[in-house]
Order: sequence, then C-alpha cells, then structure tokens
Amino acid sequence: MPETTGTLPPTGTDAYPQTGRTVPTRSRDRASYDRGTVHAILDEGYLCHLGFVRDGAPVVLPTLYTRIGEALYVHGSTGSRPLRMAGEPDPGLAVCLTVTHVDGLVLARSAFHHSVNYRSVVVHGTAHQVTDPQEKRTALDALVDQVVAGRSADSRPADARELAATAVLRLDLAEVSAKSRAGGPNDDAEDLALPHWAGVLPVSRTHGEPVPSADLDAAIALPPYLAARA
Amino acid sequence: MPETTGTLPPTGTDAYPQTGRTVPTRSRDRASYDRGTVHAILDEGYLCHLGFVRDGAPVVLPTLYTRIGEALYVHGSTGSRPLRMAGEPDPGLAVCLTVTHVDGLVLARSAFHHSVNYRSVVVHGTAHQVTDPQEKRTALDALVDQVVAGRSADSRPADARELAATAVLRLDLAEVSAKSRAGGPNDDAEDLALPHWAGVLPVSRTHGEPVPSADLDAAIALPPYLAARA
Repeated sequence: MPETTGTLPPTGTDAYPQTGRTVPTRSRDRASYDRGTVHAILDEGYLCHLGFVRDGAPVVLPTLYTRIGEALYVHGSTGSRPLRMAGEPDPGLAVCLTVTHVDGLVLARSAFHHSVNYRSVVVHGTAHQVTDPQEKRTALDALVDQVVAGRSADSRPADARELAATAVLRLDLAEVSAKSRAGGPNDDAEDLALPHWAGVLPVSRTHGEPVPSADLDAAIALPPYLAARA
Repeated sequence: MPETTGTLPPTGTDAYPQTGRTVPTRSRDRASYDRGTVHAILDEGYLCHLGFVRDGAPVVLPTLYTRIGEALYVHGSTGSRPLRMAGEPDPGLAVCLTVTHVDGLVLARSAFHHSVNYRSVVVHGTAHQVTDPQEKRTALDALVDQVVAGRSADSRPADARELAATAVLRLDLAEVSAKSRAGGPNDDAEDLALPHWAGVLPVSRTHGEPVPSADLDAAIALPPYLAARA
C-alpha cells in the first residue's frame, strides 16, 4: 500500500461534509458525520420533529418521516401549513429535521453531571414538494413501512383521490450530523465517595399487545409482521 | 343558579387563549387549550425539541425541560448557541418548544388512513435567561426531578462554579396548545370488508433494570425512587 501523504477526513470517506451548522459549539466529541451511523439512527425511528420559520418565528411540529437512500420524506395534507409553504416545487421550505432516541437516564452523584444517553440526527436543508407521481407513491409506501415494516403490502394502496389530497416533501441528506451519548455517569473524582447511588436507568420503546379494531372480522389473524413485535 | 347569557369560552375558563399560531389549519378537533391537559402532557415527559432561528434558518435541538407552574425551563452550557443567543436577559430568543408522546401505531385497511396515536404540546414564545440565583437553582433541581422524581434531594447540589457554567432559559406558558389522537383506525366504509388486519399497536416508554456505575460502592442500595420504576 502506498503511504498516504494528505490529511485524512476526520470521520472516514463515507461521511457527510462538516459545515458551520453541523459542527456543534459544545461536546464535539459526541458528534458524528458517518453515513452509516446517521442512517442507523434514522432507520430505527419514524417520528421526527420538523422545524421551519413562519413570520420570522420558529415552528416545531411532530411528524412521521421515512428514509429512501439519501433522501428523507415527510407527508401531510395538501392544506397543512408547512406543506403549502414548501411550494410546488419551488422555492422550497428551509427546514431542520431532528430525530432523537432516548436510551437511558444517567444518574451521577452530583446534580450537575446528570445526563441522558441518547442518539440523535439533525438534518438541515430545503424541503421540496414531490411532484413525480411514482416517487410520491414510493415515498408514501415507505412512510407506512417505516412505522411497521411489511405493512404497505398488506393494505389498500392510495387511490387517485387520496394521492391528490396528500403532499409529500423531500429533504436530501446533505447537511447532516449525528450526536450521541452512551455509558455511565462522569462524576468528578472528589464526588465518588458520596453516598448517592450512581448509574444508568435504561430506557426503551416497547410495544404492547395489538388491539384489533372493534369492527375487525374475527377470521382475520394477526399478521406475522405484528406478531413479531408484540 | 342564574342562567348564563353570554357565550362560554370554547374549552373552559381554565384554558390558554387561542391565537393565530396555536389554532391548526387541519384537524382542529384534535387540538386542546385546556390548562390541565397541557400540564399533564408536559409533566409526563422530560425531553423536548426546541426550535429557534439562526441566520434566518430553523434549528431544532433535543433538550431536557421541566415545568414549574406556568413556566418551562431548559438549561445548557453558557457556551451553547441557543443559550448565548437568548441574551442576558434581553432581548430573549424566539422559540418553539414541542413535546410529543407516542401512544400507538394505528393500522387501517387503507394505507391512507394509517396514523399514530399521540399527545403533543407546542409552546410558542420568547425564552429569557434566568438571572435570579434562587430561581436558577430551583429550576435546575426541577430539571433533575423531571427526569427522575425525588432525585435532586439525593445528589450533591450544584456549587457556585457549576451554577456559573450553566445557563437556564425560562419560557412562559402563554401561547400553548395540545394536540392528540386516540382510538382505532378510521377506515372508509367501503374498505371495512378488506382482508387486512386493522387495529392499534400500543407503544410505551419503559425502563430496564438499573445499571450501577462500575465504581459504585456495593454497600449503596438502589434508592426507592428507582426501584419503583424498574
């Protein structure tokens, strides 16, 4: 192997570029630009918090998302505010899309060092309305499958009226960073002898027993993709 | 009782006022301005998504919050961007603070009617840095207790150096709305005979077995406020 002479990119070649707004001012060691890390965090969730600016003020709304390759998609009624603001397809809507998983509550001896174990992804960019019918249909199927994998094939696809009533926004993964914290508390050395319990309370999202719709035909069994999650 | 002659406020007298940005354009029946409803949703969580505007673009960051009466508090390093931007204490930082709990995945026969059961609160306003030392200390204790009730009394309080390194922002609950969805799928009548399972997969946040810090004195037992949650 030839010796490398240049400087290596900080998080590998398969990384998103670092920009002024993806490099945090604090706790830079918790940030990652690695594509695989970002994808894994995104693929584990389905709820994001989408921020945009309206009349100069920030708005943050919870909404579902899905990832297809290097694009995220969110959807909503064609009458909803952010969807209307995103235009068709220009000029687009400046957004910040954030996904956060809480993994644990970190209890330190000192109140100051209490923390939370988490993994998050923050995406900055401009969202555009999807106008291509095939891309729109693919994104809507993916939105259903992001929440329950395998479900889109086991439901009635959207018809023309439903497709027309639904707007889909696309946000490319270009200016992206992940941030995470893991592990136990970081108490100061002089606090280690204090008589307080210290450690981590793990947090996870779990699913209960599926509740069939009251009008469900009793002959319809629980599908395998749900049985596996309950 | 005398007969009332005026019109009653739409969600009771103990409600937040409705404004242009708290009344949604869609699904107004899912919105609530009831103070008790808003408080209950806020008190059940500890993670919010805080939105603000930087260089004209939205930024959404996950952070911890707590509620004391009609104020929310978030905290961070004095070096962090939103905390610095919030000034001291003026002019403040225009923010949107959103809290979301996912309660269930709603599977309808049609892809279009898939949904999520959730409860969310969106707070609009201007956050200001807390300068009063007593209010700051009270807020920091409340932030610890919001995550694990009873914990602040069982940890070393912040000292002067730690207090100086921590900035606390206050956001009054004035322009606030809750939004929620509950119940089963709302399939169209013509879809009810389709052969797809329909119903709700309940979702909840659960805690695992507490993991003691590797350097924890084995004589320190798990405190009751943690034993009750595991």
